Amino acid sequence: MRYELYYWSAIQGRGEFVRLALEDAGANYVNREPVERKSAFAPPFLRAGALLIGQTANILHYLGPRLRLAPKAEPRRLWLHQQQLTIADWLVEVHDVHHPIASSLYYEDQRREAKRRAAIFREERLPKFMQYFEKNLQPKEPITYVDLSLFQMIEGLRYAFPKAISRLEGKYRKLLNLHNRVAERPRISAYLTSGRRVPFNRQGIFRHYPELDS
Amino acid sequence: MRYELYYWSAIQGRGEFVRLALEDAGANYVNREPVERKSAFAPPFLRAGALLIGQTANILHYLGPRLRLAPKAEPRRLWLHQQQLTIADWLVEVHDVHHPIASSLYYEDQRREAKRRAAIFREERLPKFMQYFEKNLQPKEPITYVDLSLFQMIEGLRYAFPKAISRLEGKYRKLLNLHNRVAERPRISAYLTSGRRVPFNRQGIFRHYPELDS
Repeated sequence: MRYELYYWSAIQGRGEFVRLALEDAGANYVNREPVERKSAFAPPFLRAGALLIGQTANILHYLGPRLRLAPKAEPRRLWLHQQQLTIADWLVEVHDVHHPIASSLYYEDQRREAKRRAAIFREERLPKFMQYFEKNLQPKEPITYVDLSLFQMIEGLRYAFPKAISRLEGKYRKLLNLHNRVAERPRISAYLTSGRRVPFNRQGIFRHYPELDS
Repeated sequence: MRYELYYWSAIQGRGEFVRLALEDAGANYVNREPVERKSAFAPPFLRAGALLIGQTANILHYLGPRLRLAPKAEPRRLWLHQQQLTIADWLVEVHDVHHPIASSLYYEDQRREAKRRAAIFREERLPKFMQYFEKNLQPKEPITYVDLSLFQMIEGLRYAFPKAISRLEGKYRKLLNLHNRVAERPRISAYLTSGRRVPFNRQGIFRHYPELDS
């Protein structure tokens, strides 16, 4: 199967969670710039044969067993999907730190609100999400697409909140070990140093504004 | 199968999307107050035999075919789930209108930010979501759990934003017809007038603050 991933080429954003899975599996895929599709509320969406699949977690739920990044049995698939949806919730909160009022406004026009939201994100929400995944990680199990997404969360948080994350990281050893284990996978390692990996930047979801990372 | 739904009994919240599906199907279920579970980031979660399933959309994805509120074929299940995840995104935005800074702060302590977010929600986001579902509705198809959730969105929006929604509603005839079609289903109609339906209130996700509905 040749997959077509519709997402903006200038940012990692939500598309990156799908790209990491496709890259790790050595899948045959191409990136396409998004086009209007009645059935897709927003990118990313994936063309897979006759299917056009939207919503990041839904795409990964579909791809998981096909890319050998999830088992086929329903209970385990539901559990992985549940965790991926929790990552999606976490990602919305990361985004809304710098855009608490509206995505359609510039950051500079909601900076004051962003600072308020950022303090609570760093102190309450970030530890809560990290602790949840730390408690539920099973380090001996084969790598899944959820693990690739957790790797991406750590990468993004290190870019956006280097100070906050450096204070927290040491408490979540299983999460850090998982991050390193993913980074060392041959296809991921090759991808990260290739031109295909878009650098983090201030157009994406993870953004570094020093004033939000006191 | 006897299901146990863990969610707070004092509010509709996210639990209500699951309750509507269980009620419409005449399923055997009980409501339980939430308890701490390592595997569940937040309520609702559903006990189904040996499974404990978290994340509202994931619960509905599981229940859909079992309650005859979704077909069994994968393409159609993915499509329904994609829409349910878009409803979940919409619901986060509804919540964040009254809590743009943090869920852990009182509304009164983020009222100014809420007013800013509310204006953009009413003018940009609400029409965007309504138009998306209006365009994708297939009025002749059997009712699914997604339709029950869209009914709940309309109900909640009418409670929280009566002025904004009354200005918009007429433009989305398919959505309104669907709402009425769901309301007339015998088990839903019986449920809505029963003591089991918790009234909307200011502890839930849909909240009526007149200043946010100018």
